[in-house]
Amino acid sequence: MIEGREIVAAGKLSYGMVGGGEGSFIGDVHRKAIAFDGLASLVAGCFSIDYDDTLRTAKKLHVSDDRVYENYVDMAREEAKRSDCIDFVSIATPNNTHFPIAKEFLNAGINVVCEKPLAIEEAEAAELSMLAKDKGLLFAVTYTYSGYAMVKHAREMIKRGDIGEIRVVMGEYAQDWLATKLEDTGNMQASWRTDPSQTGKSNCVGDIGSHIENTVSYMTGLKIDSLCSSLDSFVTGRKLDDNAEILVRFENGARGVYWASQVAVGHDNGLRVRIFGSKGSIEWEQENPNYLKVAFIGEPVQVLSRGGGYMLPSAAGVSRIPAGHPEGYYEAFANIYRNFATTLIKRKNGDDTSDADFPTVEDGLSGVRFIAKAVESSQKGSIWVSL
Amino acid sequence: MIEGREIVAAGKLSYGMVGGGEGSFIGDVHRKAIAFDGLASLVAGCFSIDYDDTLRTAKKLHVSDDRVYENYVDMAREEAKRSDCIDFVSIATPNNTHFPIAKEFLNAGINVVCEKPLAIEEAEAAELSMLAKDKGLLFAVTYTYSGYAMVKHAREMIKRGDIGEIRVVMGEYAQDWLATKLEDTGNMQASWRTDPSQTGKSNCVGDIGSHIENTVSYMTGLKIDSLCSSLDSFVTGRKLDDNAEILVRFENGARGVYWASQVAVGHDNGLRVRIFGSKGSIEWEQENPNYLKVAFIGEPVQVLSRGGGYMLPSAAGVSRIPAGHPEGYYEAFANIYRNFATTLIKRKNGDDTSDADFPTVEDGLSGVRFIAKAVESSQKGSIWVSL
Amino acid sequence: MIEGREIVAAGKLSYGMVGGGEGSFIGDVHRKAIAFDGLASLVAGCFSIDYDDTLRTAKKLHVSDDRVYENYVDMAREEAKRSDCIDFVSIATPNNTHFPIAKEFLNAGINVVCEKPLAIEEAEAAELSMLAKDKGLLFAVTYTYSGYAMVKHAREMIKRGDIGEIRVVMGEYAQDWLATKLEDTGNMQASWRTDPSQTGKSNCVGDIGSHIENTVSYMTGLKIDSLCSSLDSFVTGRKLDDNAEILVRFENGARGVYWASQVAVGHDNGLRVRIFGSKGSIEWEQENPNYLKVAFIGEPVQVLSRGGGYMLPSAAGVSRIPAGHPEGYYEAFANIYRNFATTLIKRKNGDDTSDADFPTVEDGLSGVRFIAKAVESSQKGSIWVSL
Amino acid sequence: MIEGREIVAAGKLSYGMVGGGEGSFIGDVHRKAIAFDGLASLVAGCFSIDYDDTLRTAKKLHVSDDRVYENYVDMAREEAKRSDCIDFVSIATPNNTHFPIAKEFLNAGINVVCEKPLAIEEAEAAELSMLAKDKGLLFAVTYTYSGYAMVKHAREMIKRGDIGEIRVVMGEYAQDWLATKLEDTGNMQASWRTDPSQTGKSNCVGDIGSHIENTVSYMTGLKIDSLCSSLDSFVTGRKLDDNAEILVRFENGARGVYWASQVAVGHDNGLRVRIFGSKGSIEWEQENPNYLKVAFIGEPVQVLSRGGGYMLPSAAGVSRIPAGHPEGYYEAFANIYRNFATTLIKRKNGDDTSDADFPTVEDGLSGVRFIAKAVESSQKGSIWVSL
Repeated sequence: MIEGREIVAAGKLSYGMVGGGEGSFIGDVHRKAIAFDGLASLVAGCFSIDYDDTLRTAKKLHVSDDRVYENYVDMAREEAKRSDCIDFVSIATPNNTHFPIAKEFLNAGINVVCEKPLAIEEAEAAELSMLAKDKGLLFAVTYTYSGYAMVKHAREMIKRGDIGEIRVVMGEYAQDWLATKLEDTGNMQASWRTDPSQTGKSNCVGDIGSHIENTVSYMTGLKIDSLCSSLDSFVTGRKLDDNAEILVRFENGARGVYWASQVAVGHDNGLRVRIFGSKGSIEWEQENPNYLKVAFIGEPVQVLSRGGGYMLPSAAGVSRIPAGHPEGYYEAFANIYRNFATTLIKRKNGDDTSDADFPTVEDGLSGVRFIAKAVESSQKGSIWVSL
Repeated sequence: MIEGREIVAAGKLSYGMVGGGEGSFIGDVHRKAIAFDGLASLVAGCFSIDYDDTLRTAKKLHVSDDRVYENYVDMAREEAKRSDCIDFVSIATPNNTHFPIAKEFLNAGINVVCEKPLAIEEAEAAELSMLAKDKGLLFAVTYTYSGYAMVKHAREMIKRGDIGEIRVVMGEYAQDWLATKLEDTGNMQASWRTDPSQTGKSNCVGDIGSHIENTVSYMTGLKIDSLCSSLDSFVTGRKLDDNAEILVRFENGARGVYWASQVAVGHDNGLRVRIFGSKGSIEWEQENPNYLKVAFIGEPVQVLSRGGGYMLPSAAGVSRIPAGHPEGYYEAFANIYRNFATTLIKRKNGDDTSDADFPTVEDGLSGVRFIAKAVESSQKGSIWVSL
Repeated sequence: MIEGREIVAAGKLSYGMVGGGEGSFIGDVHRKAIAFDGLASLVAGCFSIDYDDTLRTAKKLHVSDDRVYENYVDMAREEAKRSDCIDFVSIATPNNTHFPIAKEFLNAGINVVCEKPLAIEEAEAAELSMLAKDKGLLFAVTYTYSGYAMVKHAREMIKRGDIGEIRVVMGEYAQDWLATKLEDTGNMQASWRTDPSQTGKSNCVGDIGSHIENTVSYMTGLKIDSLCSSLDSFVTGRKLDDNAEILVRFENGARGVYWASQVAVGHDNGLRVRIFGSKGSIEWEQENPNYLKVAFIGEPVQVLSRGGGYMLPSAAGVSRIPAGHPEGYYEAFANIYRNFATTLIKRKNGDDTSDADFPTVEDGLSGVRFIAKAVESSQKGSIWVSL
Repeated sequence: MIEGREIVAAGKLSYGMVGGGEGSFIGDVHRKAIAFDGLASLVAGCFSIDYDDTLRTAKKLHVSDDRVYENYVDMAREEAKRSDCIDFVSIATPNNTHFPIAKEFLNAGINVVCEKPLAIEEAEAAELSMLAKDKGLLFAVTYTYSGYAMVKHAREMIKRGDIGEIRVVMGEYAQDWLATKLEDTGNMQASWRTDPSQTGKSNCVGDIGSHIENTVSYMTGLKIDSLCSSLDSFVTGRKLDDNAEILVRFENGARGVYWASQVAVGHDNGLRVRIFGSKGSIEWEQENPNYLKVAFIGEPVQVLSRGGGYMLPSAAGVSRIPAGHPEGYYEAFANIYRNFATTLIKRKNGDDTSDADFPTVEDGLSGVRFIAKAVESSQKGSIWVSL
């Protein structure tokens, strides 16, 4: 038995879900993440475009019949009429449907949590951002990796100036699952991701490159000024990029490289971010997420462990178990919902929410813009383009 | 969005909890672990010896008033009378109360999941073991580390004979939280753990040494023949051991060393097990639990990643997310409940449960015996004692 | 005592040195590297532009008076006249003197080993290359990292096609010694390296970026088609680059990123090369040089250890001590001389030298061209330039 | 080119060698180690019991004919008569001959460097120790691992009290080269090592266990009070131990475990020492020797890099190349000779030698005693024996 902190729900929220029907991986992750802290209950849903699937999923998840919807438009409109309307909707559908669904719920006055990418087109993302602002609604985009405790620690260190002015950023996200033509083997995931009609103009940058962009942006607060990218497809016959190398210039004068690859044999999910400042540096790896490598000029490299007494507040606040007890992907995901739900509860109580800490619709917009610009640069011959 | 497997509950169970009131860390872990797969709902509880605490906790957890109990005896007896009696009870109370509580529920005909150590005295543990058998009830002991996917993979490899006959086992569990006299600072956890009246005859072996014993036993199936131990207290004035070094002989002729320490500065929760056989070896570390180091004679060392296509069935079956997406402590804990609940459901359905895979009351009994013998050896001058 | 292979000199060579006087680090490294295998004796030298220094160094190194020279021109000409003329000269002088010195010795008909960079200007390097060819002389450039056994193993694996067609190359060389304005503190090394008049147009790319270029080229045999680079100086007032990020396109269609930095706080000498092919990948790190990470699609990652029975011939041939006994920087350096000397001896004996394996004047020329193009691209606004 | 320190010989020594003929690995290591710093020249030798081998080796090594000896007795006596007598002899012969050879040279008044183990019997080792003292001669035993810079850094930290009072020591030395019955395959090394008539009473403890003992003793200065060991042979038909597990009690009350194995599949030469004190801890691994893991209570773990500005004098003094440029096994070996030769030179000059820092005949005696006691404990049923 280990002593610890009990997660106490100050007030229970309710939510609905669009997507997450049979065969959906990420829908289940969303639900588990929400269940983690007991901050919200699933009470409504439209889990699939196939109504039978929705019905079966609803039954399995104990959603009562009157809140099971055949399509998301009905769901948004009907829920909005109820006195016990859901507090927020979670959208876990294919990329190209994020925009219309999120728009519908915002218009219905319902807070939104949406999978990334926020939209396919920058204009759509911008519209959602404006709409959320106009309506005064909370809007989170589930960039999972911002939820890790050590990422928050890094962010707070950087914000405090611990490593000085940032000079160089090295971000990489290496996977190998598309090293062969998996899309020809019947793998559904590979099929839609490499199909421009379902995915848009980029596969690799859109899927994982955008995680680099968000994680770096979240950690450092740096704005990208311009970029020069090479998006390539190494598997014969593949229509979209499976590898991307991007030079990045930030507004403060810092330089960076983002490398995203799905053909990097030997790598499962290797998101790694290294930030070099004038006084020190920080390194974080998603596959070993409970540790942070920190270095200061002239001193030995340090390895910080999540849960250590030296954790800064934003990280300590989401660190659930003692040091040395690994937290992983689910906890990172749960942290986004936790901070989102806490903010929502505070807002309902009229409390100050200036400490809100989750990726917002603005971050989602940045991500969509980043993807668009990376594609544009590469298509124009890997020239520099401004953001 | 990543494609994956949906966890489908074949039939929902209900459970009650003893312990896990305000300020309890491990009670919350049990509840989160159970919630993970939605296999069971909390419907009854006696969360504290302080009834007010129990009431507050029950309210927070949405347990209905009629199933909140002032003491565990009432709870066992009243639940047993109900047609919707809980399917199992989870016991998350201080060590010295495990025995009477578990006994009460077994006598009431209710399946049990109990925190380790199963009991203080070997005779008590043996009694529980016998009682569970007599009553035909399921009894799990939450040795967390057996729940990790890679531990299961190691176990299955060894069972298949991949590394040959086992020769040497090196087990260690290094922590540093008791490197200073924390019990004098008001730290509750440190106080009761180092107090013989609450903890029994051993602190360090009882708490973490027994995890080495269980993890090795789970992985290898080896039986300890005899041991020679040195239990020591390095912090002045501490009454129980904070470091233990144990030579181990197994029935098959293998040799081993178990080292458990709470004064190993620089280590958080460093459970590490290395198994050397006549053909190969396996190494696993709890703080980096998604990987397994495997070596065969004359070949390069391999690093297996949880989620890889080469995972064996028992590991693949509890691997929830794709390779490279870290699973941690909660998932390991959840896996114990998952396999326990699945077995319970099968049993209710009259299905075959010969593939049941969770630490049982027998493992709990082994653990209590191991602790007792380690203490005995050390007290008699670090002589060899048989098990 | 461990059994092993005795290094037997088939015939002892003699050599002279230009540079390597008092206070020179690299001169001593050259001499130690040559002494390692006893393949050549130092018999002549002009160790400094300061003749007194030359005299003192000569005495210390037991070079006989009649072969100590006041300047390199005399040395080349006088040695050439002797019947016991040195077999080769080692040049360990400042960068901007490599060209005239090497040229002098080539014209005198003496084989050359020269520090990198081969020259400041591409035309000079080309001239040396042509001259060596015309004269039929051996010319090695001491790109140290090509000497490591595991780099040779990687090279041979790639040559055999083990990892398939190369798709992506990630090369980085991270240091932090210039993270502050060290050149203002009297540090000699920092002063000349950041001074355009002594170093040429690039500090960081010239010094360490060129090691990435050579190591990748040595390992893969790939030719660079074009590059796009950003050379930056992050320390206020510094005149040359201290960080460089370079996108690289290879002639076979592969893509790459080279990152060289001297402001990467926390890194000492972090040369790391990762090669991704259609079947597998290879990763090597200079700071942990006795290991190679190798991955094949769908299999666990492997860690190869120098000295293992699976080593390929070119690596096994330079592996001096058993696996697990670390070899380091000196051994890598010694291996270049060993292969150079062995080739020289073979040539003297009229033997086949087609297996010669050391970085040549051609590699030196490639390096100079690479530096020039990286500077050109950056100066023109980080545009793509062809090589 | 990197700036550095030139190794300057204050006065050149001469040495002779016994052993190190054809096929000897370690003889060559000794010679390379000595050659590294140019502090001594090989001028005499008796390289083998086979005189033809001696003659061939002498020729290859440029030893002049008049100082090539048919046996070591002649060598000791003849050299002693010369005005230019060797300054020291290096003994690199099989274990059971160390004693008579060393004794002969001591009696001849010649300083000795001897391979470990110093002798087979404790009485022999004690005699050598006494003799060296009586004669006032320098006597080094080449416990290689004490030569690593980071081991010296650890030692100096501990001496300064940085990690407080030592509580726990974990030493291990894991190899796998004897995991199969290699001695039956014609492997010479395996044959003599596992043959009691050539090796004495222990193979594994004698060969590598004694390195743990020495490295720990060198780092910590702790004296062993008593031990309890299990020496086992896991390969059928093998006559001597191939695995040993030893509980250790130190005079200051610290506890430890030493594990030495030659059947630990997946390990090449895994010497690892972890020292835990009341304030901090230190960890060092031979296969990654340029780094030291250091932890202090409540602080992040630190990774020190050889060559860092924070190196303590005894380590900085033997650190030859900048941080990040790996030093290895040869450099460690060379450091022993370097410190030995420096002390010898100082002594010849009448200088103070109180800072002498190399493993002495006393350390060799400790090692022999340790081996004897480990064997005794195990033979008597793994009981505790005092040292």
